[in-house]
Amino acid sequence: MRVSPKPLLAALRGEVRPVPPIWMMRQAGRYLPEYRALRANAKTFLDLCYDPTLAAEVTLQPIRRFGFDAAILFSDILVVPDALGQSVRFVEGEGPRLPPLDELGGLAALRTGIDLERLAPVFETVARVRAALPAEVALIGFCGAPFTVATYMIAGEGTSDQAPARLAAYRDPQGFGALIDRLTEASIAYLLGQIEAGAEAVQVFDSWAGILPPQEFLRWVMEPIGRIAGAVRAAHPEVPVIGFPRGAGTLYADFAATVPVDAVGLDWTVDLAFARDEVQAQKPVQGNLDPLALLAGGEALDRSVDAILAALGAGPLVFNLGHGILPQTPIAHVQRMIDRVRSR
Amino acid sequence: MRVSPKPLLAALRGEVRPVPPIWMMRQAGRYLPEYRALRANAKTFLDLCYDPTLAAEVTLQPIRRFGFDAAILFSDILVVPDALGQSVRFVEGEGPRLPPLDELGGLAALRTGIDLERLAPVFETVARVRAALPAEVALIGFCGAPFTVATYMIAGEGTSDQAPARLAAYRDPQGFGALIDRLTEASIAYLLGQIEAGAEAVQVFDSWAGILPPQEFLRWVMEPIGRIAGAVRAAHPEVPVIGFPRGAGTLYADFAATVPVDAVGLDWTVDLAFARDEVQAQKPVQGNLDPLALLAGGEALDRSVDAILAALGAGPLVFNLGHGILPQTPIAHVQRMIDRVRSR
Repeated sequence: MRVSPKPLLAALRGEVRPVPPIWMMRQAGRYLPEYRALRANAKTFLDLCYDPTLAAEVTLQPIRRFGFDAAILFSDILVVPDALGQSVRFVEGEGPRLPPLDELGGLAALRTGIDLERLAPVFETVARVRAALPAEVALIGFCGAPFTVATYMIAGEGTSDQAPARLAAYRDPQGFGALIDRLTEASIAYLLGQIEAGAEAVQVFDSWAGILPPQEFLRWVMEPIGRIAGAVRAAHPEVPVIGFPRGAGTLYADFAATVPVDAVGLDWTVDLAFARDEVQAQKPVQGNLDPLALLAGGEALDRSVDAILAALGAGPLVFNLGHGILPQTPIAHVQRMIDRVRSR
Repeated sequence: MRVSPKPLLAALRGEVRPVPPIWMMRQAGRYLPEYRALRANAKTFLDLCYDPTLAAEVTLQPIRRFGFDAAILFSDILVVPDALGQSVRFVEGEGPRLPPLDELGGLAALRTGIDLERLAPVFETVARVRAALPAEVALIGFCGAPFTVATYMIAGEGTSDQAPARLAAYRDPQGFGALIDRLTEASIAYLLGQIEAGAEAVQVFDSWAGILPPQEFLRWVMEPIGRIAGAVRAAHPEVPVIGFPRGAGTLYADFAATVPVDAVGLDWTVDLAFARDEVQAQKPVQGNLDPLALLAGGEALDRSVDAILAALGAGPLVFNLGHGILPQTPIAHVQRMIDRVRSR
């Protein structure tokens, strides 16, 4: 196989790089003054996601400032329910709000297939970013995993434990399964649209995967992400898929062994020896700096970076955080992290 | 060694019981109508904790109704900061409130040793419950683990990610370590007081252990719980200590191997094969039914109970939930769970 010239894609294909490629989850976001300035011009958060000019600019901001090895499309996982007919809005400082699916009339009230026209501005953003990126920087598209997206659709908001969706899955596994199926199909169509517009890798974010017991994890996390990854691979074998089942704990090993993703995103709680022996031994890994270590800076940051490089640097690795960067993070700490990884 | 006649203590000592002993975290609580009726008579939640008559009655309620194999002292983990001089109150429907430690003046504003006089009503509750319990029912005392208690002392409340304490630990590990040390000593004195009053086993709850990366977990979870367990063992080798590092994931194996507790509490996300091979192979385990499966009832409940019995029933096991019972849980579901475990 030809080795890709882009470091991110090479690492996701299993190449061990002397210096691991680096990007950050939520790298386009509120910790950047240029983001906050631009954000003030958009009426709502969703307006920003659906405006190709603004969204492309936001996506490119961290690349210009830090020279990351990858850009990630600026968007939100909840554009999928939005394009299935469950309209989403974001309350400043609080989070997303949707009419809970039951109040809406259940699955029957939603579209069968996702409205790709509604998502056209997202695809346009992808195309613009791809055209504007430096040659060595890869563009990552993404979607939320069906389980995580379903938790918001059912609760109508983020909750501390997303119990409403978990309870629905216990009480009516068939009905919940139908929702997961709908989201799986929608996610495939959405990711293929991003890839056709120019995304060179895609990540599936399952931020709430970690609250599930193992049997439920198998059914609502591994199985749907597997179907998404399989469909992407069938249509575009050249595009690597990163699965990020945050909080999977011991189940990370099963996830890596069973789900046909190309790489596995690790959260910051994963033990590094386990990550190396049970996950990286099977697939390239991405992660997993504690966002609070980045916020803290100083020795805590240096030590955390070094530990990751020492444990995972001899295998295929994409350096990243173990979750999104926190808005209060000083920019100097981000630069310090990058310098430390690259001076390796 | 003489086999204890109480099933709970026997299981915690490693005996494999044909029917595992069973109790539930938060078994004395809001899902019980008799608790809600009694609760209405106490001015505040803390009044209830510090009233031996009421607290003993609440502790005994679930024993009378369900015949559990253990009673657990009705109290709260935050009586420890309260007895160190950081006064605690509970806001109905919201949770605990403390003046954040920094605003109070830091560690210097607290007592060096815990005020055992302030905790005398708790010890009195223990003595009353012990005297009132049926012969085969064991009495469990408890405390919060230093890390979890510290997260509330620093934030002044519960937060979604307890970031303030984690950030403090990164920024000032020495200062944070001094707080952990203070809490470790206080916890030892508090548990020894409970044991001297009649507690026959003790559990150390580290509800927030799962948010820490491995190196921090080692330092702020395993090390302090190890010191507490070691001190209890030195003074009262007959009293088993259950460690519950909720959310420890892969680190459960290290915890079981390294920390001198007698048994390990498992949360509901732990894979049962891992629990059997990596934890129960080293120590008796306790857990780990998903509280939402209990709330859901029906087939989801039966299946979840059966899976635990099938995976862990051949080794030393205390059947329990993987976290506290939820207030909305129907009483009939609790009875169904007990019947299913006992009809094994």
